[in-house]
Amino acid sequence: MNQQLHFITLSTKDLDAARDFYVRGLGWEPLVDVPGEIIFFQLAPGLTLGLFDAEKFAQDQGRPGTISPVEGVTLSHNVESREAVNDAVERMRNAGGEVVKPPQDGAFGGIYHAMVRDPNGIVWEVAHNPGWRVESDGTVVLG
Amino acid sequence: MNQQLHFITLSTKDLDAARDFYVRGLGWEPLVDVPGEIIFFQLAPGLTLGLFDAEKFAQDQGRPGTISPVEGVTLSHNVESREAVNDAVERMRNAGGEVVKPPQDGAFGGIYHAMVRDPNGIVWEVAHNPGWRVESDGTVVLG
Repeated sequence: MNQQLHFITLSTKDLDAARDFYVRGLGWEPLVDVPGEIIFFQLAPGLTLGLFDAEKFAQDQGRPGTISPVEGVTLSHNVESREAVNDAVERMRNAGGEVVKPPQDGAFGGIYHAMVRDPNGIVWEVAHNPGWRVESDGTVVLG
Repeated sequence: MNQQLHFITLSTKDLDAARDFYVRGLGWEPLVDVPGEIIFFQLAPGLTLGLFDAEKFAQDQGRPGTISPVEGVTLSHNVESREAVNDAVERMRNAGGEVVKPPQDGAFGGIYHAMVRDPNGIVWEVAHNPGWRVESDGTVVLG
C-alpha cells in the first residue's frame, strides 16, 4: 500500500454555509458541487477535499443515523510571512469564520499561526513556518 | 487566500500504536518522527499528514485538557483495481486495522471501496474509482 492520500472527506452539517464560506467568502472554485450532497475542492496536486452532507457521510461509512461533527482535526494553510497570516485570518473572519486562536507564535516548530473555525466547525490553521518548504517535485522539507 | 492545503493534523492518543500500524505494518516512511510528540508522513506532493499526540494537539488548538478523538473524517487512498482494494484492506487488517466496511460497491460515485479503522480510530477508505484520475500536472479530474 503506497504512501498516498487522494481524498479527505469531512462530515458537513450545512453545505450551504460551507459554500458561502469557501466559494463566496474565500473565492475558492469547486471541482464539483452537487447541492445537498457534496462539494469538492482540489487543494494540492492530486488531492481533493470533499465536504459531504453529514447524513450521507454517515451512510457511506456504514453508520447510518450517526451524524458526527468533525473533531480532532486541523487543516493547515501555510503562507509566506507573518503579515500574510494576519491578512488571511482577517479574510476568513470577514467570510464568517470564528477566530479561536488569534495570530501568535506557536508552541511547536517555530511557527507563527492562528486557528479559525469554519461555519461547520472545521478548524483551519493559518501559519508562517520558516522551517518548511516544498521542492519543485512536490517533496516536503521540514527543517 | 489561495486554494491550498499543506498539512492535515490529527489528534492521536497512542503514537506508538500509530507507528506500529503505518511504519511497521504498512511500510510507510516518516518525514519526521518525534517520539511522544508527532509523526509526519508526506502523502501527496506538498502535503503532509501529522499524527500529533492528543494532549499536545489540544494545547496547540488553544483548548488544553480537551482530548478529541477524530470524528467526521475519512482519508481516502485510491488504487487501480477492485483486486487492489481487496489486497490493501487485507494488508491493513494484518497490520492491526479494523475493517468496518468490507470491500463492496459504494452508494456514491460508481466506486468499489472499503473502510478500515486504524488503531487510533482514524477511518481510511480504500477505493477503486474508475471516474477519477490525476493528470501529470497534479490536476484532479472527477468524471
